[in-house]
Amino acid sequence: MPDLTVAAIQFAAAADPAGNLDTAERLVRKAAGAGARLILLQELFESRYFCITEDPAHLATARPFEGNPLIARFAALAGELGVVLPIPFFEEAGQARFNSVAVADADGRVLGTYRKAHIPQGPGYEEKFFFSPGDTGFRVWDTAAGRIGVGICWDQWFPESARVMALMGAEILLYPSAIGSEPEAPDWDSQPHWETVMRGHAGANLMPLVASNRVGTEIQGGRTVTFYGSSFVADATGRIVAKGGRESEEIVLATLDMDAAAELRRSWGLFRDRRPDLYGRIGAF
Amino acid sequence: MPDLTVAAIQFAAAADPAGNLDTAERLVRKAAGAGARLILLQELFESRYFCITEDPAHLATARPFEGNPLIARFAALAGELGVVLPIPFFEEAGQARFNSVAVADADGRVLGTYRKAHIPQGPGYEEKFFFSPGDTGFRVWDTAAGRIGVGICWDQWFPESARVMALMGAEILLYPSAIGSEPEAPDWDSQPHWETVMRGHAGANLMPLVASNRVGTEIQGGRTVTFYGSSFVADATGRIVAKGGRESEEIVLATLDMDAAAELRRSWGLFRDRRPDLYGRIGAF
Repeated sequence: MPDLTVAAIQFAAAADPAGNLDTAERLVRKAAGAGARLILLQELFESRYFCITEDPAHLATARPFEGNPLIARFAALAGELGVVLPIPFFEEAGQARFNSVAVADADGRVLGTYRKAHIPQGPGYEEKFFFSPGDTGFRVWDTAAGRIGVGICWDQWFPESARVMALMGAEILLYPSAIGSEPEAPDWDSQPHWETVMRGHAGANLMPLVASNRVGTEIQGGRTVTFYGSSFVADATGRIVAKGGRESEEIVLATLDMDAAAELRRSWGLFRDRRPDLYGRIGAF
Repeated sequence: MPDLTVAAIQFAAAADPAGNLDTAERLVRKAAGAGARLILLQELFESRYFCITEDPAHLATARPFEGNPLIARFAALAGELGVVLPIPFFEEAGQARFNSVAVADADGRVLGTYRKAHIPQGPGYEEKFFFSPGDTGFRVWDTAAGRIGVGICWDQWFPESARVMALMGAEILLYPSAIGSEPEAPDWDSQPHWETVMRGHAGANLMPLVASNRVGTEIQGGRTVTFYGSSFVADATGRIVAKGGRESEEIVLATLDMDAAAELRRSWGLFRDRRPDLYGRIGAF
């Protein structure tokens, strides 16, 4: 695959899930119309980010992977538009719940699901209350847009998940996200840190990376989080090639030379010179 | 340790090793005079970068760790100035040779040596001809400047080595380097890529990072490499807080809040949320 046009979508979630699905569909159609063949929606795009506080009412909004109407709708959309589309959703699995993403190929087939491995917990991001740590392991998907690796939000902070997906043959890394201000540290802006770590994954694994992150201010139980958008596409050296603003609904588009990235992975020597015999320490806390 | 002032030194190597040692000593004294308590010299600072071609004459310049006069001189200097000083050197070990660094504490004691684990090989950087891959594993050192992790050049491209040192309790990561232009790809500038990957290590491991890299143009066997300096200090979010130019001899100084970095490592949750059960794939190519 020589050139691949990708899009990261960012929008502000409303209280009404049906409206959010319509917004997402409108933006996916627009991104496809602009030439994107791989389109990344934000984490849990159906709803507001309900993890701002620990309100058990939201636990009931999870839905199973099988027979999931949200997945059916967006997989059909992917097939209609001929685009590869990861579909983030809140998954109910037996008595447990996961923060998940289904992956739809460009022919509308659903290839499977990945469950977020790394779960944060802190003021405004109370995810351990809602989600079990994912049990699928990291996954890559053979699609019309090449072999893609998809992590979810907090996964983006861990070099291990990026590296595992790269070793599994990923050609591009995707991270749907929901991150913004810290309710108890209003002066702290994690955006540059967030971006720097993911640019590092792109550069260290010599492959492009796409991050999508919602915008807008959401208030729940008296707590306020302002999501900072800044969705971006980085190339195989970690350089930012397209980036959204912090506040606006946006489609962040970029065309990537995937052959050049593959050539860089071959020629730069990093995957030749690894020392797995010295990496055992990574397998423990 | 609340504040730690660190320095990265960069200079152009001359043909004469004795002159290079004098230059290094002059700059270490100057950095200490400016308040640095941890000073990083560039990789193989005694000599020009002899790996530009595969000339076996240079193999004979390696010296054992034990009784090494270069190490003795710079460890004594560290003790005199009361600074922590990693001392890169070309090590002969029995019939083999390593690209190594001895670590001198601020009292002049030599704590031991680390042998570069990841060895590059490509036009202008023919290191596999000169060095065996290091057999020490990654190491950290308890010094007057805290627990420091020291990698060497090519190690800086691998998230694994940074992570292993972090898991071993490193509070700061140090990378003496020798990197510049690509003789067979004159339009390729790896400097932004090089910097991005290391900033990613700092951000992902929530600890400051210092890189030192030589400047100057060196010609060997008809091949030319122009080293791009750009030595830098990044903070625990991967932000560049001090950076040298591409051409000039320089002392790059920064004062780091090590307590704030430790607090960030505790509170940000990354080391709590790792999933070692899912990282097994990293242990193979």
